[in-house]
Amino acid sequence: MSFSVYLSGEIHTDWREEIARGAQAAGLDVVFTAPVTDHPASDAAGDHLAETGSGFWRDHQSAKVNAIRTRTLIEQADLVVVRFGDKYKQWNAAFDAGYCAALGKPYVTLHDDDIVHPLKEVDAQAQAWCTTTDQVVEILRYVLKG
Amino acid sequence: MSFSVYLSGEIHTDWREEIARGAQAAGLDVVFTAPVTDHPASDAAGDHLAETGSGFWRDHQSAKVNAIRTRTLIEQADLVVVRFGDKYKQWNAAFDAGYCAALGKPYVTLHDDDIVHPLKEVDAQAQAWCTTTDQVVEILRYVLKG
Amino acid sequence: MSFSVYLSGEIHTDWREEIARGAQAAGLDVVFTAPVTDHPASDAAGDHLAETGSGFWRDHQSAKVNAIRTRTLIEQADLVVVRFGDKYKQWNAAFDAGYCAALGKPYVTLHDDDIVHPLKEVDAQAQAWCTTTDQVVEILRYVLKG
Amino acid sequence: MSFSVYLSGEIHTDWREEIARGAQAAGLDVVFTAPVTDHPASDAAGDHLAETGSGFWRDHQSAKVNAIRTRTLIEQADLVVVRFGDKYKQWNAAFDAGYCAALGKPYVTLHDDDIVHPLKEVDAQAQAWCTTTDQVVEILRYVLKG
Amino acid sequence: MSFSVYLSGEIHTDWREEIARGAQAAGLDVVFTAPVTDHPASDAAGDHLAETGSGFWRDHQSAKVNAIRTRTLIEQADLVVVRFGDKYKQWNAAFDAGYCAALGKPYVTLHDDDIVHPLKEVDAQAQAWCTTTDQVVEILRYVLKG
Amino acid sequence: MSFSVYLSGEIHTDWREEIARGAQAAGLDVVFTAPVTDHPASDAAGDHLAETGSGFWRDHQSAKVNAIRTRTLIEQADLVVVRFGDKYKQWNAAFDAGYCAALGKPYVTLHDDDIVHPLKEVDAQAQAWCTTTDQVVEILRYVLKG
Amino acid sequence: MSFSVYLSGEIHTDWREEIARGAQAAGLDVVFTAPVTDHPASDAAGDHLAETGSGFWRDHQSAKVNAIRTRTLIEQADLVVVRFGDKYKQWNAAFDAGYCAALGKPYVTLHDDDIVHPLKEVDAQAQAWCTTTDQVVEILRYVLKG
Amino acid sequence: MSFSVYLSGEIHTDWREEIARGAQAAGLDVVFTAPVTDHPASDAAGDHLAETGSGFWRDHQSAKVNAIRTRTLIEQADLVVVRFGDKYKQWNAAFDAGYCAALGKPYVTLHDDDIVHPLKEVDAQAQAWCTTTDQVVEILRYVLKG
Repeated sequence: MSFSVYLSGEIHTDWREEIARGAQAAGLDVVFTAPVTDHPASDAAGDHLAETGSGFWRDHQSAKVNAIRTRTLIEQADLVVVRFGDKYKQWNAAFDAGYCAALGKPYVTLHDDDIVHPLKEVDAQAQAWCTTTDQVVEILRYVLKG
Repeated sequence: MSFSVYLSGEIHTDWREEIARGAQAAGLDVVFTAPVTDHPASDAAGDHLAETGSGFWRDHQSAKVNAIRTRTLIEQADLVVVRFGDKYKQWNAAFDAGYCAALGKPYVTLHDDDIVHPLKEVDAQAQAWCTTTDQVVEILRYVLKG
Repeated sequence: MSFSVYLSGEIHTDWREEIARGAQAAGLDVVFTAPVTDHPASDAAGDHLAETGSGFWRDHQSAKVNAIRTRTLIEQADLVVVRFGDKYKQWNAAFDAGYCAALGKPYVTLHDDDIVHPLKEVDAQAQAWCTTTDQVVEILRYVLKG
Repeated sequence: MSFSVYLSGEIHTDWREEIARGAQAAGLDVVFTAPVTDHPASDAAGDHLAETGSGFWRDHQSAKVNAIRTRTLIEQADLVVVRFGDKYKQWNAAFDAGYCAALGKPYVTLHDDDIVHPLKEVDAQAQAWCTTTDQVVEILRYVLKG
Repeated sequence: MSFSVYLSGEIHTDWREEIARGAQAAGLDVVFTAPVTDHPASDAAGDHLAETGSGFWRDHQSAKVNAIRTRTLIEQADLVVVRFGDKYKQWNAAFDAGYCAALGKPYVTLHDDDIVHPLKEVDAQAQAWCTTTDQVVEILRYVLKG
Repeated sequence: MSFSVYLSGEIHTDWREEIARGAQAAGLDVVFTAPVTDHPASDAAGDHLAETGSGFWRDHQSAKVNAIRTRTLIEQADLVVVRFGDKYKQWNAAFDAGYCAALGKPYVTLHDDDIVHPLKEVDAQAQAWCTTTDQVVEILRYVLKG
Repeated sequence: MSFSVYLSGEIHTDWREEIARGAQAAGLDVVFTAPVTDHPASDAAGDHLAETGSGFWRDHQSAKVNAIRTRTLIEQADLVVVRFGDKYKQWNAAFDAGYCAALGKPYVTLHDDDIVHPLKEVDAQAQAWCTTTDQVVEILRYVLKG
Repeated sequence: MSFSVYLSGEIHTDWREEIARGAQAAGLDVVFTAPVTDHPASDAAGDHLAETGSGFWRDHQSAKVNAIRTRTLIEQADLVVVRFGDKYKQWNAAFDAGYCAALGKPYVTLHDDDIVHPLKEVDAQAQAWCTTTDQVVEILRYVLKG
């Protein structure tokens, strides 16, 4: 049994690599995908296109280019992991979770205990809430190997 | 022409009433719906059900009861307005926006200029970004009356 | 705000009437629907049609006639209540719950504490688990009136 | 012609192995999938996650982890076999059948004659009712080889 | 409980009126719809449009105009009755049945015993097979009144 | 039988009024809807929102506001009439036709004979091609009254 | 470019082989699938299952087993060819065409000129009407090679 | 990461080859597909089928054959590029864009600055607007390689 897992959310720590290493160590047949995690590159994704008169339209143009990648990868994934770190708003992570919920696409969340309350709607539709990357790997191990 | 509009997000200011008053003053045939906006009642929505051993499960149980209302109202709406205030994380608002995006349900955002950048993915899928409730009312006036 | 609620499952106690009385006492604008709850009539629903050589085909024919009613009512409902009593297998109730889950239709379960374990998959996709009809009414009151 | 078949339901007899052996003996190109059939492991699937204050929430948490696997495999299957044994409630099997019915996913049932009546709604939407694993294998042989 | 029923198929006998009279006599709240049953008018439905060089294109043009009506009415119906008479091919009736099957729209068939074999695929997906209009009315009575 | 008809496309002649008058004269129960047909108002639909640094973003912003109205009305319509006049590109009309085609929403086209060839893909998915508003009215009369 | 083509309908002539030979001769990368075309085997597809008291239930049981194969293959196909011969009713072919139409699955018909009129609804939704297997092969050649 | 890209629209310049060369030079794993771009062959796609009495029906018949190819390729694509040249109406390109929009399929447009205004509805739903094939290649490079 193989699985495709999209890793959504925080881009300032190496949680994606931790999960990938753990899955490899456990011998799991998982393909991991992700948004572009180079922050400046992501913000500039549309800068080669039309002139924009303000930060709003620059962001708008880049976000729509990024969505070509993220929307496709989310729809192809068997499972989405949504990570909320301890900095930044990360509304895009919550947005991805809502997107998954409406598609009926299974997702798990990964965040610390101190933000359980503001994330209650996001967690309520998730298949699981993890606080460590080891827990995510254990879920993958169980799902694929029983 | 009539419209059903769901008002998602921030519950600590009277933006919903402002929009409703504006729509009424403009003679628009709009029915507004919303989540339960009484914060303590919303947090306690599931307290009369199963015992919960922790804050996580209390939140989980209440959030799932709230979703009975919110999911149905969002799916019945012709338009969703998603409001991000200047306090709190409001991940549930971003979650609703993602839910709308996946359903192909039109939504507009309502938030100040200083959070344009972290909301760029949410705004990129929106039909419009408003900074004042008057702008929301003007959109409704235009859509219904031309 | 009004709601349509389908009451699925056990047909040997008056739990449907309890919920309807409770909703009326609370002044809720709810329309309740249900399968045909007259057991002999339900078993004989197809007897006026083709000859059947065995119990299997008699059941088959009647079950398909009943499905004309139940499938339509479930798809029209805003919420489904799935009741498991203390007698009989009630696989049809679990079947309705699975049907709701695949449609993304919200449902709540109503059953005693002693069958929590065998119903864990059914409860895991439900919006709430109730043990009394009063709890169902309270959910309806909260969802409709906040 | 190849086929993917998900084997849902009873986990206390070796019916899954019987079908797999029969399909292999018949030279059929079928991939069989299943839920995790190690009962204690399945019940404990979420134990490494959040604290749970009661059996209900432990079951809830584990059932949601199991659903990551089962929902994905059911949606990928060309055919689902739903087995009801002579012990236990097996509401999860009926739940899977309802889930398939709503998706338009073909399924066959496998159960003894003495539970035809309580399973009539489940059988009515099935493509076939089998009483032996040989019959299931014969259906697969016919479907794949004509 | 009310129902919308589309009456598909044969247009040379008064089976539609028989069902409507029976439903009225039984006091059922049913709205019946149908294709245009005036045969020459139906064949000429597109004659006021483009020139057509052959019978094929005349039929093509008229059939597409008729589909505006029939497709909409089938999709709005709660139940479809598909009638096969003893004359003509009535492939359009079988076509409507297939259309319903793919939509998950319940339908019942109405035809004599001597064409059971060639209609086996059509009947296999139907909720019931009737040989008389009284049986159709009895199904409607049961579904609506129990 | 009643119908909702959305009138898409050209806004520089009074074809919408001709159809509406014809339908009224024929006593048809049809509700007609349309985009905002005041050209300057439509172009300015988003001008009260964010600053835009160029014609592209002004158009972008206004077009997304207009889509709130048009997308909703198209999805609610039973039939769409797509009009191509003898001036302007009217790519939005072709866009609406493609949108209908993907939704399975029936539409008819209304255009002169001299643009049959470049519109062949649009006409191929239409239910009918009309050259006069009288033909559109006749289709409506036939569909509603037979 | 490769294609999967399902060949539905008549089973008494070798039209399927003609198309396959033609496609091979043209060097096309097409995989052809079909229902079980051994008539007695198809009629007996469910005979090893439950007892049936009449021809109706025998046909019913076999038709549902056959549908496991045909429904899956139709849904996997890129194109369906629906063949109407000069004998038998072939309602199952028309049923498949209606099934395709509702799914938005492209299909072409293959039948003689003398049954154009009774097949007008079936042809109206088809992508093409062919009278010879060479025409079907030519369509495939064009679609795959331009 | 690999991608399938459908190149819709103008067939009189070599923009498709430019994009393909650019993608190859950038080492991208992209499969490009397109409609049949041989104009006379495309217009004649159905000429081997039924007699047609006019240009309208000839176009109709050929356009439906072409749609077998284009509809399938669009639905299989991860991204669609829609090109509007400086000649011809190219309503089929706008039609494809509308088709993508309704499916939720991401597309980008490729056209000069002087037709921004008449294409505003088409651009509003696009993920990006490009004026050069280099910009399209840069989007592909970013989406696939970050």
